[in-house]
Amino acid sequence: MIDKLISKIKKTQAPIVVGLDPMLKFIPEPILKRAFAEYGETLQGAAEAVWLFNKEIVDAIYDVVPAVKPQIAMYEQFGLEGVKAFCKTVEYCKSKDLVVIGDIKRGDIGSTSEAYAVGHLGHVQVGSQTCAGFDEDFATVNPYMGTDAVAPFVKVCREEKKGLFILTKTSNPSSGEFQDRPIDGRPLYEWVGEKVTEWGSDFVGESGYSYVGAVVGATYPEQGKILRAIMPKAYILVPGYGAQGAKGADLKHFFNEDGLGAIVNSSRGIIAAWQQEKYKAFGPEHFADASRQAVLDMQADLHQALESVGKTTY
Amino acid sequence: MIDKLISKIKKTQAPIVVGLDPMLKFIPEPILKRAFAEYGETLQGAAEAVWLFNKEIVDAIYDVVPAVKPQIAMYEQFGLEGVKAFCKTVEYCKSKDLVVIGDIKRGDIGSTSEAYAVGHLGHVQVGSQTCAGFDEDFATVNPYMGTDAVAPFVKVCREEKKGLFILTKTSNPSSGEFQDRPIDGRPLYEWVGEKVTEWGSDFVGESGYSYVGAVVGATYPEQGKILRAIMPKAYILVPGYGAQGAKGADLKHFFNEDGLGAIVNSSRGIIAAWQQEKYKAFGPEHFADASRQAVLDMQADLHQALESVGKTTY
Repeated sequence: MIDKLISKIKKTQAPIVVGLDPMLKFIPEPILKRAFAEYGETLQGAAEAVWLFNKEIVDAIYDVVPAVKPQIAMYEQFGLEGVKAFCKTVEYCKSKDLVVIGDIKRGDIGSTSEAYAVGHLGHVQVGSQTCAGFDEDFATVNPYMGTDAVAPFVKVCREEKKGLFILTKTSNPSSGEFQDRPIDGRPLYEWVGEKVTEWGSDFVGESGYSYVGAVVGATYPEQGKILRAIMPKAYILVPGYGAQGAKGADLKHFFNEDGLGAIVNSSRGIIAAWQQEKYKAFGPEHFADASRQAVLDMQADLHQALESVGKTTY
Repeated sequence: MIDKLISKIKKTQAPIVVGLDPMLKFIPEPILKRAFAEYGETLQGAAEAVWLFNKEIVDAIYDVVPAVKPQIAMYEQFGLEGVKAFCKTVEYCKSKDLVVIGDIKRGDIGSTSEAYAVGHLGHVQVGSQTCAGFDEDFATVNPYMGTDAVAPFVKVCREEKKGLFILTKTSNPSSGEFQDRPIDGRPLYEWVGEKVTEWGSDFVGESGYSYVGAVVGATYPEQGKILRAIMPKAYILVPGYGAQGAKGADLKHFFNEDGLGAIVNSSRGIIAAWQQEKYKAFGPEHFADASRQAVLDMQADLHQALESVGKTTY
């Protein structure tokens, strides 16, 4: 799956993942009205609005990006109905041949992590049958509990040829509270980075990149530079671009000389583009076209940043 | 909710939470057969088996324990159908007046953590209506991303009078990999413990205990003693008893002199008791009675441990 991701990045020339993190306030009035007319102002109505919104965006962007990243929290906020919309979204994106990164940030003791891994990336044994649950292509994993929490995910990924992104240095303002604390002279995130390298060192695709990647926030470019060196084979999933404040120029260190090694996420910067002054002309009816334009603008911004430091662009 | 939990602990004289972590291998053949006969060897069949199994156990134990802790991973392993069984289980346990601790170990950047908090503990705005999603009473939270990740949970808990348990020192063998690393001479888990105290210091119930508790593994009794002192008002959720190896005697330091301050989890030690040599006489047909007996035996073990150090027992 890491090779498929890279091949699609090359094909689309876009090291971009669109975060499908729908909040109701991002959804244009006509879609909300349609969903509420059918199901009322209920969890089911909200989930229907999310699904209609996602589908239109996916239809508008599937040929210009390699991957999407649904953030499961934005679906869980609507309970079971939201999780149904998550499943429909994952299935639809896969039918459009998009790589689906489940942003689930799970992690628990061994047998429990195994259940998460099986449910999100693998197959579970039911009597004599094996069944797939959520069936994403990649998942994000929280490393606070150590190797026990990560190893079952790696095991399932080996069986399924799927991949992981381990939280290393996250994009949020308080990420330093624990992640930056110095241990034997080096911040915790560097020790996590070392482990990411260890967990993925013998699980590498034909591209030379590992199936075990890392999450490093675009909001911390200097730390990104250090982590890039610590984890040479890890693909880095980079959140924090756009709405969280990072620009293309902050991203150049996350990429290797080959122009690969990183995929940059933007969520509301793409899916709620229609609400920005810049894309206002599209209007709420054409919100998905605004999303497509926002992807193309982001692509140009990233290319410019990479070219400015002489790195290959895709 | 912390006061309700404590009042129920006193009433049942059992500082015990039963982990409803159903794996198919714990479920007796007759239940599997019944579920598969109706829905086939499918995710739906598996989820039905889980639900039937849980219901029977809950019916057998609801009057002798204060709380249950469904581990959502064990439901997510069966995809959407599993999540349905999770919802039914939460609802049924609440109808039996059990306190429900959702073992979800979520944690993300601010707006995303807010979505998790709203979905699992609070209410979400849908048009002019407010709707509850999963509606657990407590949730477990992963602190790796810092205050940003925890604050939205605390905010929702304040609105809803619900509570949290923050992962501090987890019960698994590799928990020390990051959590034990020394920072300015003290292990990371102590710094997390300090934050737990800070996050919960002004959010305290009539009992004197905070709505913001901590998870500390029974498998690390010495660390439990230190964390007990660092977090005097925090209720400690203690996994690791039974199947993971800890005994009653390991638990005495987790409790305060008043016999309160800790609630001990046992999952497979209770729900799969019928598979143990000790409870074999119950047979697979009476697996739930074996679970009830395992609760009573655990209660006696905890009482003995607390009495041996002169602490009050409930």
